[in-house]
Amino acid sequence: MGKSIPESILSGERVALARLLTQVENSSPEGRLTLDELFPYTGKAHLIGVTGAPGTGKSSLVNQMALQYRAWANPKQVAIVAVDPSSPFTGGAVLGDRVRMRDLAGDPGIFIRSMASRGSLGGLAQSTAAMVQVFDAAGFEVILIETVGAGQTEVDIARLAHTTLVVEAPGLGDEIQAIKAGILEIADILVINKADLPGVENTERALKGMLGLAHPVEKVFHHHGQAMVMPGREPANASLWVPPILRTIATDGTGVGELMAAIEQHAQHLRQSGDWGRRERARLAAEFEGLLTETLVVQFRAGIPDVRYDEVVDRLIQRTLSPWEAVKELLNRGA
Amino acid sequence: MGKSIPESILSGERVALARLLTQVENSSPEGRLTLDELFPYTGKAHLIGVTGAPGTGKSSLVNQMALQYRAWANPKQVAIVAVDPSSPFTGGAVLGDRVRMRDLAGDPGIFIRSMASRGSLGGLAQSTAAMVQVFDAAGFEVILIETVGAGQTEVDIARLAHTTLVVEAPGLGDEIQAIKAGILEIADILVINKADLPGVENTERALKGMLGLAHPVEKVFHHHGQAMVMPGREPANASLWVPPILRTIATDGTGVGELMAAIEQHAQHLRQSGDWGRRERARLAAEFEGLLTETLVVQFRAGIPDVRYDEVVDRLIQRTLSPWEAVKELLNRGA
Repeated sequence: MGKSIPESILSGERVALARLLTQVENSSPEGRLTLDELFPYTGKAHLIGVTGAPGTGKSSLVNQMALQYRAWANPKQVAIVAVDPSSPFTGGAVLGDRVRMRDLAGDPGIFIRSMASRGSLGGLAQSTAAMVQVFDAAGFEVILIETVGAGQTEVDIARLAHTTLVVEAPGLGDEIQAIKAGILEIADILVINKADLPGVENTERALKGMLGLAHPVEKVFHHHGQAMVMPGREPANASLWVPPILRTIATDGTGVGELMAAIEQHAQHLRQSGDWGRRERARLAAEFEGLLTETLVVQFRAGIPDVRYDEVVDRLIQRTLSPWEAVKELLNRGA
Repeated sequence: MGKSIPESILSGERVALARLLTQVENSSPEGRLTLDELFPYTGKAHLIGVTGAPGTGKSSLVNQMALQYRAWANPKQVAIVAVDPSSPFTGGAVLGDRVRMRDLAGDPGIFIRSMASRGSLGGLAQSTAAMVQVFDAAGFEVILIETVGAGQTEVDIARLAHTTLVVEAPGLGDEIQAIKAGILEIADILVINKADLPGVENTERALKGMLGLAHPVEKVFHHHGQAMVMPGREPANASLWVPPILRTIATDGTGVGELMAAIEQHAQHLRQSGDWGRRERARLAAEFEGLLTETLVVQFRAGIPDVRYDEVVDRLIQRTLSPWEAVKELLNRGA
């Protein structure tokens, strides 16, 4: 008799892993059962979110990081989950995978998986969480979660991670910088990629300015080019972390070693300050609440005949019932 | 005795309107009751969604459209709802309002309202829907719903509209163009703003190419610079609309008249084809489902003591219970 599916995953079989990831992405019941069996084996991986606008070179940076983790004296097993919430097409993601394969193919210590939007609200964050869980159980020590853009979905997905990198590049307009103010709040490390392009000084200056806005409690000053917390002013909170701003050129690897050292420092900081545990709690609670919401809606909807549901929508269109009155009516007489 | 709140709104009192919008944004129970009373008076406004990346000049375009609607022989009452889902700060939106005020202030036929993200999943689309409902009942004939970016939230908000404009500008990189493929699917009209900038021909060519991908059923060819549906091939669907690509320079008004004529044509097309009714149905059904989901979760959660809830999350962290098992456990023994 062969191994069970969870056993195959735990022993690192790639075909079983690929199959399970597809089941999980399709929310199949078998996938869910396997996830339950694997859950006790999760909680070991370092989850690293990488987000930023299109054109910042995020994917190259993620590739470069994966290659370097593999080149360490004690190489890490690396999974890449690339999420593109804005595109209903899978074309881009698939193309991206193919480009990546050239560099990373053939290394059994790397696994890449792309996901495009399925159009379902909240569904993408949930599928990503489930995929991360699979990779974690399968023994991948570093999981890079790459998202595009700065919308709410991307922020929600980035919140899945222990360490979040926000990637910028020189030459993006002022308005683009401004919209990033929101996403800066979730940054543990700021990366200016394509640092060989003109305008890198301006980008760094803008980021430093916005970092002051996004972390107003901390008073940061710069001393010999190093960001430091103002001396003589003890941080109110022992878990203070000032997001460093680092420059990289992903295409030739410049600065990527320093970036990875900063990531290690952040992981150490999280563990020492107790923030690792707090982030785990927030992450698992969010995942659980997402599943709960989905299940409540599916169960409730299953108890309402389609005819009854359509009749309610008809009355909304006739303006004889408001959306809120419709909810109250269905909840009282419904499931 | 004074007028009731719904009466004040219906008679166009701006102070009552501003107060109700705040109640609605905060999801207050009074706001919800007033919404119910106003709902029968909605369904008359033309909802126009305007979306596009930062730097395309969307806000100037929206301002210019508002000014022109006011300058018509039969001026329209215009409301602007500006939504910025990516920013947890209200600063940007407030600044934007102030810049706008200079042009539009003092005209009682224009009302502007900004909303920044409250961080609640799905909450922004719901608040926007409720605000639109208030303006509709208050007699605003045109409601411009402006969103930034191309994420899922923005797409959801754009789906609120009868007519959706996607705004581009010359000189945005190829990668930025590529990510727009998703949002092109929701475009009824494509606008290339800042059409005086170099690169406008390239942008138009790229958009034409992507439009072919996004609307693959329709075979469009170009004849004397006019986009036409291939003759001799009847559209399978009587409600065929080929999104026109229009050039504007919002800062001096060039092309804005033509854009507004195209918007009128689209409205006429929607009414003649029956698509107006189909969009109304989809919009109201989505609004109702959002409220239903929210209410189900709030009701369920109210039935679970906090201690019980925290205990479940503790077991998730200890990996003795999976998120899915936690949902099943709470649903069986829960509310």
